[in-house]
Amino acid sequence: MNKQPHVAIVGATGAVGIEMVKTLEKRRFPVGQLTLLASVRSVGRKIPFAGQDLVVQELTKDSFRGVDLALFSAGGGISREFAASAVAAGCVVVDNSSAFRQDLEVPLVIPEINAADIQAHKGIIANPNCTTAITLMALYPLHQAFGVKRIFAASYQAVSGTGAKALEELERQVEQIVHREPVTRQVYPHQIAFNVLPQVDAFLPSGYTKEEMKMENEGRRIMHHDSFRASVTCVRVPVYRSHSVAVSAEFERPVSLAAARTALERAPGLDVVDEPARQQYPMPLFTTEKYNCAVGRLRLDRALDNGLCFWVSGDQLLKGAALNAVQIAEELVKPPGAA
Amino acid sequence: MNKQPHVAIVGATGAVGIEMVKTLEKRRFPVGQLTLLASVRSVGRKIPFAGQDLVVQELTKDSFRGVDLALFSAGGGISREFAASAVAAGCVVVDNSSAFRQDLEVPLVIPEINAADIQAHKGIIANPNCTTAITLMALYPLHQAFGVKRIFAASYQAVSGTGAKALEELERQVEQIVHREPVTRQVYPHQIAFNVLPQVDAFLPSGYTKEEMKMENEGRRIMHHDSFRASVTCVRVPVYRSHSVAVSAEFERPVSLAAARTALERAPGLDVVDEPARQQYPMPLFTTEKYNCAVGRLRLDRALDNGLCFWVSGDQLLKGAALNAVQIAEELVKPPGAA
Repeated sequence: MNKQPHVAIVGATGAVGIEMVKTLEKRRFPVGQLTLLASVRSVGRKIPFAGQDLVVQELTKDSFRGVDLALFSAGGGISREFAASAVAAGCVVVDNSSAFRQDLEVPLVIPEINAADIQAHKGIIANPNCTTAITLMALYPLHQAFGVKRIFAASYQAVSGTGAKALEELERQVEQIVHREPVTRQVYPHQIAFNVLPQVDAFLPSGYTKEEMKMENEGRRIMHHDSFRASVTCVRVPVYRSHSVAVSAEFERPVSLAAARTALERAPGLDVVDEPARQQYPMPLFTTEKYNCAVGRLRLDRALDNGLCFWVSGDQLLKGAALNAVQIAEELVKPPGAA
Repeated sequence: MNKQPHVAIVGATGAVGIEMVKTLEKRRFPVGQLTLLASVRSVGRKIPFAGQDLVVQELTKDSFRGVDLALFSAGGGISREFAASAVAAGCVVVDNSSAFRQDLEVPLVIPEINAADIQAHKGIIANPNCTTAITLMALYPLHQAFGVKRIFAASYQAVSGTGAKALEELERQVEQIVHREPVTRQVYPHQIAFNVLPQVDAFLPSGYTKEEMKMENEGRRIMHHDSFRASVTCVRVPVYRSHSVAVSAEFERPVSLAAARTALERAPGLDVVDEPARQQYPMPLFTTEKYNCAVGRLRLDRALDNGLCFWVSGDQLLKGAALNAVQIAEELVKPPGAA
């Protein structure tokens, strides 16, 4: 790829798109030109990038002429409609939607785990689900050390994972409650302020939600581990940003706390925050706007023989979305042979 | 026991104590006389009961003369200091603290599960931990149907479980954030508004908290099931009232969804709220101030061979505390031989 590629962001005005623009700038990604694309209702909005105000343009099938790299984050429908046009125009697509994650022709990548898979791409590379990405950042180093068999997990997911309108909904509901006004809803089926909703994404006939199945389906592909099993409950909580996950993991081999800690401390993109005596553990308030995920509450699992319990938290707009996409882009522009 | 006992409430001005007074009145418990006891700083406060304003009196070792039944909810220290005096005065104590829950001389009771254990009391009956009680309301009927081996659980616990001051803390922090003021803390070690804290109660050397161990320790006693294992992560969430728990449970015998649903529908004190297509599932906002716990999100567990996933929510001030204590008291005043 061009060493200073022309980059397009599809869904530039969304919660993730805005973070993609910021992340490209903060990480000094070698942007040759940046094109911001969105639906017609956002056309004309200005978004700052590298000292300039870039004007959002309308996404069409002709938007990708001359574009080397497109970061998509506008939902699965837009990805299915426009990714092929981008690829046909010679563009490489990093797609943050779930549209291609189970397409075996499309690498599904967390660069700290399976960067090498990127090489096999045929124009599209998929970015994983946010909760899956954050969980795997802690689980994969443990898998390397002990060989994971299965996990039991429950998530605590922030509203910004649903998008900018959900963030506004929580803010609005809180203000309504503080001012003793009736609570209104537009995004979630139930009040999210001072409540928790045990539903993220749509239900499947099995009773699991699509979101809950992503952990196993995407985890298998990213870890190259076809027998990995995951039973997950995904829950929306009244937190603005950063997802957290409580995990019980069972391994093939005996687990020691010391070896687990060492494996996690050496893992890239992960901070071990685990000092119970000082009440230090990962929390969404403190992983917000951080690139690294944080893992803590490490303990040998009481109900598993080779098991470890842990708690991981990470910014789902960053490692769960924009950062991971930009990291994939960074791999794409690396000179051949670079580590 | 006297059919219209003289009842005392110890800790009458606390979050649970207030619910005890209300619950005695609402359930028309045959109160002969009601004495409200608290520490010296609450003396003189008036609390309405059955159309009168009762004046809070100071708790002393002489408070229990003539009292038949005392409901304690003022923390383990107060229970350890005063329960023996109450028993010596001829009073039966129902204790909501953790002080006696592991004392094999003291029955630990959820009336829907092990009411018969009450008969063996020697003056004190213990009320279980709130998260444990709410979880067991759904787990025990499943245990009867399939024989539970172990569970993996993660909790979503409301601030009122910590007490009235924690409720005020969440309210205050939300107002501070809405008014763009600095956030202050007095109760929790970290901001609870728009955050989640993966700590409830103190840490043990194992890395689990005391709260997390209650599920296994109390579950074994209440279900009379010494090999029951539970790996739990307890998490405080910015919800005012009602705890929720995500559970993966493994059983001895094969589980069918239909049989699980039937067992849960027949269970006393429990509502099955499980219509994913209509986005109906238990939530803390809707179990608040309800006597019954609610269970839903029923599904065969993907990562267990004989396993069921479920989600249970219940008012921890009621079934998790005041209601359960009053139900124990109701058993005590039943005429001998009554069902």
